Amino acid sequence: MTDIHDLTLKLQRQNDSKIVLYVADGLGGLPLEPGGKTELETANTPNLDALAKRASLGASVPVLPGITPGSGPGHLGLFGYDPLKYNIGRGVLEALGIDFELGPNDVAIRGNFCTLDDDGLITDRRAGRIASDIGAKLCEKLNQIEIPGIEVFVRPVKEYRLVIVLRGEGLAGEINDTDPQKTGVAPLDPIARDDASKATAELCKEFLAQAREILKGDAPANFLTMRGIATLPAIPTYEEVYGLRAAAIAVYPMYRGLARLVSMDVLDAGQTLEDQMNCLEANWNDYDFFFIHFKYTDSTGEDGNFDAKVQRTEEFDTGIPRIMALDPTVVIVTGDHSTPAKLKSHSWHPVPTMLAADVCRFDDVDGFGEAQCRTGSLGQFEAKYLMLMALAHAGRLEKYGA
Amino acid sequence: MTDIHDLTLKLQRQNDSKIVLYVADGLGGLPLEPGGKTELETANTPNLDALAKRASLGASVPVLPGITPGSGPGHLGLFGYDPLKYNIGRGVLEALGIDFELGPNDVAIRGNFCTLDDDGLITDRRAGRIASDIGAKLCEKLNQIEIPGIEVFVRPVKEYRLVIVLRGEGLAGEINDTDPQKTGVAPLDPIARDDASKATAELCKEFLAQAREILKGDAPANFLTMRGIATLPAIPTYEEVYGLRAAAIAVYPMYRGLARLVSMDVLDAGQTLEDQMNCLEANWNDYDFFFIHFKYTDSTGEDGNFDAKVQRTEEFDTGIPRIMALDPTVVIVTGDHSTPAKLKSHSWHPVPTMLAADVCRFDDVDGFGEAQCRTGSLGQFEAKYLMLMALAHAGRLEKYGA
Repeated sequence: MTDIHDLTLKLQRQNDSKIVLYVADGLGGLPLEPGGKTELETANTPNLDALAKRASLGASVPVLPGITPGSGPGHLGLFGYDPLKYNIGRGVLEALGIDFELGPNDVAIRGNFCTLDDDGLITDRRAGRIASDIGAKLCEKLNQIEIPGIEVFVRPVKEYRLVIVLRGEGLAGEINDTDPQKTGVAPLDPIARDDASKATAELCKEFLAQAREILKGDAPANFLTMRGIATLPAIPTYEEVYGLRAAAIAVYPMYRGLARLVSMDVLDAGQTLEDQMNCLEANWNDYDFFFIHFKYTDSTGEDGNFDAKVQRTEEFDTGIPRIMALDPTVVIVTGDHSTPAKLKSHSWHPVPTMLAADVCRFDDVDGFGEAQCRTGSLGQFEAKYLMLMALAHAGRLEKYGA
Repeated sequence: MTDIHDLTLKLQRQNDSKIVLYVADGLGGLPLEPGGKTELETANTPNLDALAKRASLGASVPVLPGITPGSGPGHLGLFGYDPLKYNIGRGVLEALGIDFELGPNDVAIRGNFCTLDDDGLITDRRAGRIASDIGAKLCEKLNQIEIPGIEVFVRPVKEYRLVIVLRGEGLAGEINDTDPQKTGVAPLDPIARDDASKATAELCKEFLAQAREILKGDAPANFLTMRGIATLPAIPTYEEVYGLRAAAIAVYPMYRGLARLVSMDVLDAGQTLEDQMNCLEANWNDYDFFFIHFKYTDSTGEDGNFDAKVQRTEEFDTGIPRIMALDPTVVIVTGDHSTPAKLKSHSWHPVPTMLAADVCRFDDVDGFGEAQCRTGSLGQFEAKYLMLMALAHAGRLEKYGA
């Protein structure tokens, strides 16, 4: 199987086209009853519907049929990186999610505060779900830990969750979790799964020894476990594989972090969709590619709130006129996965997608929804191919072979 | 990833079915405006439309979504050979395009006559685009070159373009172009990219030295550059992988050459579609599989002439009754890629395709066009799978597994 980027490296062509990837997180949905409409079909979306009339529609499969992606694989696919090839460790994702700027010498670790009894056995794997401000104070204490030869960063996430980053030359992340996944037993030692990670496992052990001493009086959070120990995957940059100067306009840290993984410039997106559109306009001349991320279609879906997801979809719709006013060469509207309110979670269902360009096929539809996308001319496709289509419609790919 | 031919080698079954692959080069198109019709949809094609009513329709993706193929990869895909696995060098394609019968001991090279100044620097990479008859005369002179141990063939293509073939045991083609792609510099030396090609690179050097001497008084065409140096890829034959005795009926040399690559017999196709149909009838009993190639839907598309492409599509349509009169088991109508008049070039858009057989699903459509193919029961599929469907509908594949 040829890697997509082997092709784009050879075939990429420069021009002054502009591509906008407008992502509604968790866009795809489900009707509550057979015969009913999905959230997107229910929403009043005049701008998306008008765009659909001059677009190719299709259904994006984030990873493979039936596979529900997390935010990492979901976005990597949209960015054109095979989500089965590039694996983002949980620790890395957690660090990205708090806007921590990871570098190539970092090992990122997701930590959970836990409660130990007098025998050192875990009685609560989440330390009674301590309040976030308590967790933050404990992280400040842990952030004082010093280990010779490396830098140590400890940052709070939320409640009992934290991130630990070890920074130094030659670190590696093939190290088992120390969370035994049950109570009544002691935390595990951090065990290296390969030779290259043995030294780093020792550093983790040293960190845990110091943490045990620091936290011993702080019950219920008198210790922590480590999970998802990982380094940044080696990912070729957007500029390299596509020849695109790319910018991300995302309100939430996680999505800024994912964009940073592929070396997009992360712009100041502000707090609202209007802020994001202002940012797009202000930076229009400086980039070839814009990734605009809208979070709330996912969060309302996760809440199981069908009506709120409909409303947020209508809000998402209002961004279209300001994008179109800039006259982009290619506009893609899609999601990183489905988040049906009915399921209150991410799902595997293909994601409604449209690509509008002067040189696309037109699908003779009356609007943008799951039903129209099912029979659109993009077909049902793996998300990782979306960037090939974006580049093609932007005139940014040479012919393959003579 | 399983190779398609690993399967067909195991599963092929003999019977006396007949398969016709009727290819309109560049068949797929685009409407000139949103809401408009494509060339195929505009054309009056009563025979294709009638066939569609008893066929399965679909949209063929020549290589991968967004990838625009040249004629080589486009046809290899239709023939069932993964176009990302089998790479046809530019020199090979150029030789095929002038009906030069390449063998396994040949290295094919695309040559460009160029102009050198007194210092040996290139002043014109195309030698003032000399007339074809002048190019032909120069090729006759170059064809006298003798290099001990090998045979040398020099053939004109058109204007400043020529083909050089070196024939001998143990030659190899991993050699860089000598065209520096700019003027004001000297031509490059032919540099081998691997050890196996070093001896052949020396032979290229020797050829160029003799050519320099021969051409020195022939300004503006007083030298040549070499490009796309390549050997035939090792491709298993149709007979081997499918158990088919296959014949090609193609007016243009390039397509005869591509058929020869997979060891089809190349029949005398004459000059017109009627000649081609006469040829089909005359040879009907001698083969299991016929590839019939119609060029003009591509060339009119390349010209950007929407109306002419419509007209040529209507001409293509007239071939259907004579094919159907022979009562083939399976008829496939498709293209090797799209060539929308709107783009004046090959494109990545999926290609309208239909497969008619007694045992196919029927799609309840009123005609053959991009719109009907978008929702057809073949779905959107990579072209390399088309031969599997042809064999299946012809009863030529055993069950896989028990």
